[in-house]
Amino acid sequence: MRPFFVPSLALLLVAGFARADEGMWTFDNFPSAKVKERYGFGPDKAWLDHVQKSAVRLAGGCSASFVSSNGLVMTNHHCAHRCIEELSTGKRDFIADGFYARTPAEEQKCPTMEVNQLLEITNVTDRIQKATEGKSGADFAKAERKAMSEVEKSCAINSKVRCDVVTLYAGGQYDLYRYRRFQDVRLVFAPEFAMAFFGGDPDNFEFPRYDLDVSFLRVYDDGKPVKVEDWLRWSASGAKDSELVFVAGNPGKTNRLLTVAQLDFIRDVSQPWSELYYSEERGVVEEFATKGPEQHRVSQSELFGIENSLKAFKGREATLVSPGFMDAKRSAEAAFRAKLAADPKLKDTVGAFDAIAGAETAYRAFFVRMMLLEGTPSASRVVPAPFGFRGDLFANARILVRLAAEATRPNGERLREFTDSRIPAIEHRLASTAPSHPDLEIELLTFSLTKLREMLGPDDAVVQKVLGKKSPRQLATEVVRGTKLGDPKTRLALKAGGAAAVDASQDPMIVLARLVDPDARAIRSRFESVDATITSESAKLARGRFAFTGTGTYPDATFSLRLSFGAIRGWTEPNGDGGTRTVPAFTHFSGAYERATGVAPFALPRSWVSARPRLDLQTPFDQVSDNDIIGGNSGSPLLNQKAEVVGLIFDGNIASLGGDYFYESATNRAVSVHSSALLQALDRIYGAKRVLDEILPPGAPASSASGFH
Amino acid sequence: MRPFFVPSLALLLVAGFARADEGMWTFDNFPSAKVKERYGFGPDKAWLDHVQKSAVRLAGGCSASFVSSNGLVMTNHHCAHRCIEELSTGKRDFIADGFYARTPAEEQKCPTMEVNQLLEITNVTDRIQKATEGKSGADFAKAERKAMSEVEKSCAINSKVRCDVVTLYAGGQYDLYRYRRFQDVRLVFAPEFAMAFFGGDPDNFEFPRYDLDVSFLRVYDDGKPVKVEDWLRWSASGAKDSELVFVAGNPGKTNRLLTVAQLDFIRDVSQPWSELYYSEERGVVEEFATKGPEQHRVSQSELFGIENSLKAFKGREATLVSPGFMDAKRSAEAAFRAKLAADPKLKDTVGAFDAIAGAETAYRAFFVRMMLLEGTPSASRVVPAPFGFRGDLFANARILVRLAAEATRPNGERLREFTDSRIPAIEHRLASTAPSHPDLEIELLTFSLTKLREMLGPDDAVVQKVLGKKSPRQLATEVVRGTKLGDPKTRLALKAGGAAAVDASQDPMIVLARLVDPDARAIRSRFESVDATITSESAKLARGRFAFTGTGTYPDATFSLRLSFGAIRGWTEPNGDGGTRTVPAFTHFSGAYERATGVAPFALPRSWVSARPRLDLQTPFDQVSDNDIIGGNSGSPLLNQKAEVVGLIFDGNIASLGGDYFYESATNRAVSVHSSALLQALDRIYGAKRVLDEILPPGAPASSASGFH
Repeated sequence: MRPFFVPSLALLLVAGFARADEGMWTFDNFPSAKVKERYGFGPDKAWLDHVQKSAVRLAGGCSASFVSSNGLVMTNHHCAHRCIEELSTGKRDFIADGFYARTPAEEQKCPTMEVNQLLEITNVTDRIQKATEGKSGADFAKAERKAMSEVEKSCAINSKVRCDVVTLYAGGQYDLYRYRRFQDVRLVFAPEFAMAFFGGDPDNFEFPRYDLDVSFLRVYDDGKPVKVEDWLRWSASGAKDSELVFVAGNPGKTNRLLTVAQLDFIRDVSQPWSELYYSEERGVVEEFATKGPEQHRVSQSELFGIENSLKAFKGREATLVSPGFMDAKRSAEAAFRAKLAADPKLKDTVGAFDAIAGAETAYRAFFVRMMLLEGTPSASRVVPAPFGFRGDLFANARILVRLAAEATRPNGERLREFTDSRIPAIEHRLASTAPSHPDLEIELLTFSLTKLREMLGPDDAVVQKVLGKKSPRQLATEVVRGTKLGDPKTRLALKAGGAAAVDASQDPMIVLARLVDPDARAIRSRFESVDATITSESAKLARGRFAFTGTGTYPDATFSLRLSFGAIRGWTEPNGDGGTRTVPAFTHFSGAYERATGVAPFALPRSWVSARPRLDLQTPFDQVSDNDIIGGNSGSPLLNQKAEVVGLIFDGNIASLGGDYFYESATNRAVSVHSSALLQALDRIYGAKRVLDEILPPGAPASSASGFH
Repeated sequence: MRPFFVPSLALLLVAGFARADEGMWTFDNFPSAKVKERYGFGPDKAWLDHVQKSAVRLAGGCSASFVSSNGLVMTNHHCAHRCIEELSTGKRDFIADGFYARTPAEEQKCPTMEVNQLLEITNVTDRIQKATEGKSGADFAKAERKAMSEVEKSCAINSKVRCDVVTLYAGGQYDLYRYRRFQDVRLVFAPEFAMAFFGGDPDNFEFPRYDLDVSFLRVYDDGKPVKVEDWLRWSASGAKDSELVFVAGNPGKTNRLLTVAQLDFIRDVSQPWSELYYSEERGVVEEFATKGPEQHRVSQSELFGIENSLKAFKGREATLVSPGFMDAKRSAEAAFRAKLAADPKLKDTVGAFDAIAGAETAYRAFFVRMMLLEGTPSASRVVPAPFGFRGDLFANARILVRLAAEATRPNGERLREFTDSRIPAIEHRLASTAPSHPDLEIELLTFSLTKLREMLGPDDAVVQKVLGKKSPRQLATEVVRGTKLGDPKTRLALKAGGAAAVDASQDPMIVLARLVDPDARAIRSRFESVDATITSESAKLARGRFAFTGTGTYPDATFSLRLSFGAIRGWTEPNGDGGTRTVPAFTHFSGAYERATGVAPFALPRSWVSARPRLDLQTPFDQVSDNDIIGGNSGSPLLNQKAEVVGLIFDGNIASLGGDYFYESATNRAVSVHSSALLQALDRIYGAKRVLDEILPPGAPASSASGFH
């Protein structure tokens, strides 16, 4: 990550005031009037409804949109990377070569992809707050979880409906999001990885860029392409510099309302720890990939995930340690505290700051153990492998072990990620036909067991129990070679067999997951007690904040659908030598050819090298706008006033990473592929006529996309 | 690194007051009266002179001592690791198997080791301060460097004399250290790595421990073992719990007098950056080592160095981010500032705090570039490879390129590490017969060039100049395969040929070093301007501090000889569950057998497995004492009142790492091998009779070391 500039933080951190094009707004509280005042156009209800239904979420952590009535979905290549890799084999490498289904029959099912279309938002604040009233700490958390599970269960009438209660404004508001769930998602088109991620990690989170980070999927229902009423049309020319644009997508998580004690914890404890873990794992996987072409092929998705997380962590940390940042946060918090203290009805709330600080201090003592044995719990996703036991095989073993146990409990008392409304996603995962890569699994598990031993110490009871007299590599090799969990049939049989089958299993990965589970659950329970304090105390602060600002501002991101507005805009920043440099809003095809070196990650694929004479090299390629987005927004459509596609979001620049903690309009930029680049590449480079015919704007010549710039 | 406890920091940070057994004292200012008051014994001048001359420094960064009149030197295995590895081949692996010279002729010369024996300390403060009087910033630094070089040159009358001006009390005092320099150092004995570093990285910086981290070397002069008058005798029984003990050695660097702005820089910028770099490099080297037995063998020394640095960084960072630490430092600084402001003669000094803060802020802007292109300059050691160009081959190329240029300049105007008094060490390095490992070199250079491109960005002018259209791996492979610098003859010929030969060389590594040198020098010069400000402003603060405390306290460590006192002592710490646990001062042979798993790093070597019946398992193995030490003290003798060897320092516990910033007596512990364990292992396990006969206490039975516990 290159050094980046954070402008006059103190001025930017005035609490509770949304500046410039700031905000990841919910669709039921979009500030249309404000946008109209600023840009002369504000979306109406019909516009919002149409875009809400056209935008979809990839449950794995991305955004996307319908771009034809026939269920065609556009998202990023990197959002479908896992699917593309899972469909590849040693003989057919779709990551390297790209993928294009020339006929409907050639569209191939992604083993683990789920698409969610948001149908309805219902405010359920009263129901949840009634259940938690007067409660605090663990009682609060238990009551909240139970109430949320009940609301979700009564909504999710079958496996095609997904219902999530979303906590907004840190507990100031609870909304029920009802989705249509699609689990038959097929790959239609993907370019070569080399072009989707041209510039690789060095250019990731940077701009200028030259990436065609796109893939097209198709959503099926009952074996046929789903027919949708709401889908996005294509703009004939894209957006101009300074033009108003919108991003509809699912930003994952922001932390703009955290207290100083919470930020201290992130800056000093959780983030540095994660960075160090990922850095070392990155080194291991990088070097593993040099062992041979097959090792290279099977590790690229893992490596991309690690590098992407790592660079994001670094960018966020750079904001947290930038001179003045924490001082400014401290001042803003002091002002908020004073405001609360001055209000007779709210002054009791002030104690929440110390309660949260106390909880964070308590968490410091067992954070590392929590990460290694349990990882970060997530209500919205199937739990990932903990950092002490990396790899898909262990993750599946843990899911089976826990599912067997949790299924015997009442819905409201289960671990959040095993409640009834989450079961379809879990079953989908267990049924995945994606191939397993034992060599990589051994390497990842060896590495993580080594970290487990290093960080807890060889004398720790869990370490002793897990390793005994074995080395991490011995144990990892033994359980990966011995397990049958790479086979979906085995997983589904164990799932079907329930607790009896899982308890009786001698599969070594199941045995390992069973062995660790009591310790993992113990540390999770300790975490949940701390977390419950933070949640209930944050809710007090949130209600205090709500009393001053109401829904006049937007809630922190929660991986639910949001709309942000902004304009196509370059930026100006210091050049490090006392002067400034200006980064224009657009790049063009020509720049990719100038930047190419012939060697990854700056190697153009053959298709691009040979298509060069057929291209209009002045076609805009990538672009930046000042929409307020964050990770999870990948794959979001960039829209103009007519709700037409003018681009495809795939990244933010380095300054955007600080957006986790605050939005600043001077340099924070969203990065998208220009709509004209997408059309011209599909036409003149890939000859992807089936895709083009579906998305082309009405009246445009169907066989040629020339003139689209 | 496991979590560790930092007790009541606020109480411990009262400035300028040496508590309990604190202090790394210079030999000419040892607080004997204070020690006597506390322990009933204080060393006299004769004691101090004898120990000073018996203790030696390994110029590569360790401590050691003469333990026979015949030039036998005791140090750690890890201090001789590089030598042991360099003497090994694919057929004879002394790292794995250990080494023992059964006859004098079998003693093998270490290719790059230099031993320094401190003969004399002369205060030269007046000469240096006169030269710098009234100067500040770059003028100050230039004048200081020139004066120091002159003093050193007039002292170093031939290559057997080494003279270093040491800056003490951050510029409050300058002393000339005159050493006898030995460059013919031969390996006599080393145990197996598995026993020297039993527990490996997981147990590094931890206690209880079971390590025999020892090696014996012999210093030669004119082809014969050197005869020394001062050498350390052996204690018959070692030290008892609570007994007074001393450590004579060369602590590398502490930062106890830094300002808050300097600590902020370390906490937020330099240390996290280094941790991340080393973490990823560690992953690369770990995985490289799995490629085959030869790759494993040639990479272990590199890996040990990385892991050791990394764990030390993590321990120090844990102190810096521990709750309350920076607040306590801030309070102490405010008190010092107030004291200065209240003194009419010193109040002008107060501005130095802001000047230093300004310099640190300026450094933030180019720190990463500095690390990548230049690394950390060190006056006392030959410059290591910068982080953008790792590996010995590049380091040697840079040395040749710079030496050729610097040699044409007047001594006082050269880069510090190329002044006349440093030339013998450089020549020694260039003449090294250690084998080169091209596969490892390619991996390290590929990695570092990848970081160079990632961190400066592919568009950076230096990156473009270095890589052109090549990938990091292409360039690294090309220059490593193409260079002849692995051969000492080539290096010495280039050295002898001077600037003409180096400028004309087409060796690709020389070409690369030449290509980067102007940029590296430019960033170094920018660094030196910032550093000059910090140096001259720190000197003002130092004089202020000196005015209050004089030499009543000890200076920060400077990799020069120091004496610390303390007692054999275990410690008590929180156990993480609300209670406490007590760690006793000694471990015993029996514990090693209990801890062994049979797999590295917990595998006992065969010699230990088979010797078990012959050992007295209750023999003390390792021990802890509360002497104030830090990295660089590795290999120091632990001495009793009679100046007899009772142990061999090889580590500190986790809490000792915080000793970089302050000493706290409750948990900071030095870790040493017990003298009885050394004797019994030499006798009953290794049958190292030649060594034993030399070091055995007079009157002890020469053929058996029984009874030494």
